[in-house]
Amino acid sequence: MNVNLTTIGERAKAASYALASAGTMVKNRALQEMYEAFYKNSGKIAAANAQDLLIAKGSGMSDAMLDRLTFDVRRIEKSADAIQEIIALPDPVGRVTGGSTHANGMTIEKVTVPLGVIGVIFESRPNVTIDAAALCLKAGNAVILRGGKEAIQTNVAIVAVMREALARVGLPSDCVQLVEDTTRESALEMMRLNRYIDVLIPRGGAGLIRSVMENASVPVIETGTGNCHIYVDENADIAMAAEIVCNAKLSRPSVCNAAESLILHEKVARWALPIIAERLRKKNVEIFGDEIACRIMKDITPATEEDWGKEYLDYKISVKVVKSLDEAIRHINKYSSHHSEAIITQSYDSAEKFLALIDSAAVYVNASTRFTDGGEFGFGAEIGISTQKLHARGPVGLPELVTQKYLIRGKGQIRT
Amino acid sequence: MNVNLTTIGERAKAASYALASAGTMVKNRALQEMYEAFYKNSGKIAAANAQDLLIAKGSGMSDAMLDRLTFDVRRIEKSADAIQEIIALPDPVGRVTGGSTHANGMTIEKVTVPLGVIGVIFESRPNVTIDAAALCLKAGNAVILRGGKEAIQTNVAIVAVMREALARVGLPSDCVQLVEDTTRESALEMMRLNRYIDVLIPRGGAGLIRSVMENASVPVIETGTGNCHIYVDENADIAMAAEIVCNAKLSRPSVCNAAESLILHEKVARWALPIIAERLRKKNVEIFGDEIACRIMKDITPATEEDWGKEYLDYKISVKVVKSLDEAIRHINKYSSHHSEAIITQSYDSAEKFLALIDSAAVYVNASTRFTDGGEFGFGAEIGISTQKLHARGPVGLPELVTQKYLIRGKGQIRT
Repeated sequence: MNVNLTTIGERAKAASYALASAGTMVKNRALQEMYEAFYKNSGKIAAANAQDLLIAKGSGMSDAMLDRLTFDVRRIEKSADAIQEIIALPDPVGRVTGGSTHANGMTIEKVTVPLGVIGVIFESRPNVTIDAAALCLKAGNAVILRGGKEAIQTNVAIVAVMREALARVGLPSDCVQLVEDTTRESALEMMRLNRYIDVLIPRGGAGLIRSVMENASVPVIETGTGNCHIYVDENADIAMAAEIVCNAKLSRPSVCNAAESLILHEKVARWALPIIAERLRKKNVEIFGDEIACRIMKDITPATEEDWGKEYLDYKISVKVVKSLDEAIRHINKYSSHHSEAIITQSYDSAEKFLALIDSAAVYVNASTRFTDGGEFGFGAEIGISTQKLHARGPVGLPELVTQKYLIRGKGQIRT
Repeated sequence: MNVNLTTIGERAKAASYALASAGTMVKNRALQEMYEAFYKNSGKIAAANAQDLLIAKGSGMSDAMLDRLTFDVRRIEKSADAIQEIIALPDPVGRVTGGSTHANGMTIEKVTVPLGVIGVIFESRPNVTIDAAALCLKAGNAVILRGGKEAIQTNVAIVAVMREALARVGLPSDCVQLVEDTTRESALEMMRLNRYIDVLIPRGGAGLIRSVMENASVPVIETGTGNCHIYVDENADIAMAAEIVCNAKLSRPSVCNAAESLILHEKVARWALPIIAERLRKKNVEIFGDEIACRIMKDITPATEEDWGKEYLDYKISVKVVKSLDEAIRHINKYSSHHSEAIITQSYDSAEKFLALIDSAAVYVNASTRFTDGGEFGFGAEIGISTQKLHARGPVGLPELVTQKYLIRGKGQIRT
């Protein structure tokens, strides 16, 4: 059944108020119920997914996309297992983070509270549906999910299981709702539902993120686009540089913390580029180089201005040669999506300057950009990697899914 | 001279990178130079202000608005003195707020860094120009100021003084820039200057805030609208209630933490309302009441649905009678602007329930909403009161004018 967004919003808001006063135990019990229900209903969900896959195949979806859409019993169980990790994480709600006593005797206490209603707009990976809902719930937030139309039957089945689990522990099932209308209009309406949605989190490709940033009046946490750079300094260990570039480019080219651009100091470019390029080419990486790079290696494709800003998410990399560390920093700050960047250097001064001046969420010295990840940083599950500066920057986990409020207790104090 | 916004943006971004690596001492020296320069140039600024006032009077501006626009020598010196307070506050940049060592030996450090470029859109109070620029500067941010057209000559004079002071200590004068084009188009363009502006802060009335929320694609910190409620519980001390309501309504009706709505439990309404109303009426407060309130006191104006959501900023208040604490909480959460609300009660359970369930930045028991203020909360100067949940909620001071970044130091680590 299609329910209109205002109704969904009203229900979410009401549910969020009930959830705000639910303790950790109740929320964890709901998550445990979900975990068990996913194991029990994995066949039903997989069957719904099979129908989505059938339609997707019929419409000529690519193999890579079909793989992302696939949610078989094994993957469902893996998603269910991830809920156990969320149960084990500390509750971010109710921490006292500051406070004081006013000269007039009032106490002022700052505590963490849920954000309220979180909207999540995503594409066609069904595991996102479970991850996002479980994280929002653990942080005491009601969630409105809007996935891609390709996964609609899978999502309906998943959300039904979650809603039943909520009801079984006495929480409103409207803590988790799905927008079944997958038209572009419903996405746009959701982006402007300020009255009911406190925060909107888009999860997906650059096009989705851009559309949300352009159209949303609801406050947004921008996540996930990664045009990550690796700069090889004049004092770099070239063997280390090659190792890190290959890891950052090749270990998983389709993710946001993969490297997309290699910047080389001119003093090392001539011998470092052939070494790195050879290793990348063995894995069929296409290289787009600036003039100097193309002069060093004849068979490099000339880069266009557009290449510098591109997130290929593919076996492609751009290469630029610079005269100095300062030029590298300027280039990166200009073209980066401000996700993750690395310098390879043996110079203390270069390392510290790069760390200080690069304007990105995660800045590395002598390590792969692929480490920007909630798990690797020790935060547990994440709902995305924020590339904006408000509220959350870098991996967005449970501690970022709350806000704060001030509680003031007095005995009749007035302001004079 | 009118400079186009892209140029202003580019210059601000470049200045912000220079400022990001400036230490506390340099920033404080710039602020000290500004302080001295405002004393030295107060005559010049006051003369520019006199010209603005002349035009404003000619166009029939109200006395209240003229008062807000007035920036005479005494007020200029008061604004300059406020810079001394900002100098005395701790630098929010460069704090290490977390970190860990990865199992592979990399260190992960989380540090506070400036937001970058902050845009401030405001109306015609010239002290905002100085306050906002000084706060942004202390937190290491370049600022783009766009004030109302009524104050343009005053703002030009103020910003010239600040830019000269920056140059004297060797900082780029583009750390502080003014948008001299005061058309609506320039405001709209600024709201969508994502490439250069990291965060936009509107300061002004509800209309300005709404326009920014509707139109901005740049991340916004929503500030300042306050439809604040005071709920008088069935267990309230009515003398205390009257005292607090009068303080919250009357001590400064034009500010955002003033009370706009009084909610009374039906068990006390009959005798509490006449007591409170009599005191408010002595100060010529107009009362808009619901049906029951109008039945209790014959000469109350009937409230319309619109009244419940209104921020009067005037000698007006709405009054509603409820059957229960729950109804009061539901009403407040529905109509409030989520700024500040208070309960007057002697009941522990009512107090704790109100604190837990009211969805506002500051929630009070037995104290006036007028205390929601950076100074009163012990944070020093503030750039506004945030009514949104992302990043900052409540008074936005120096600690909220920074973001964080992760610095990772390795020795060649790759992700396996």
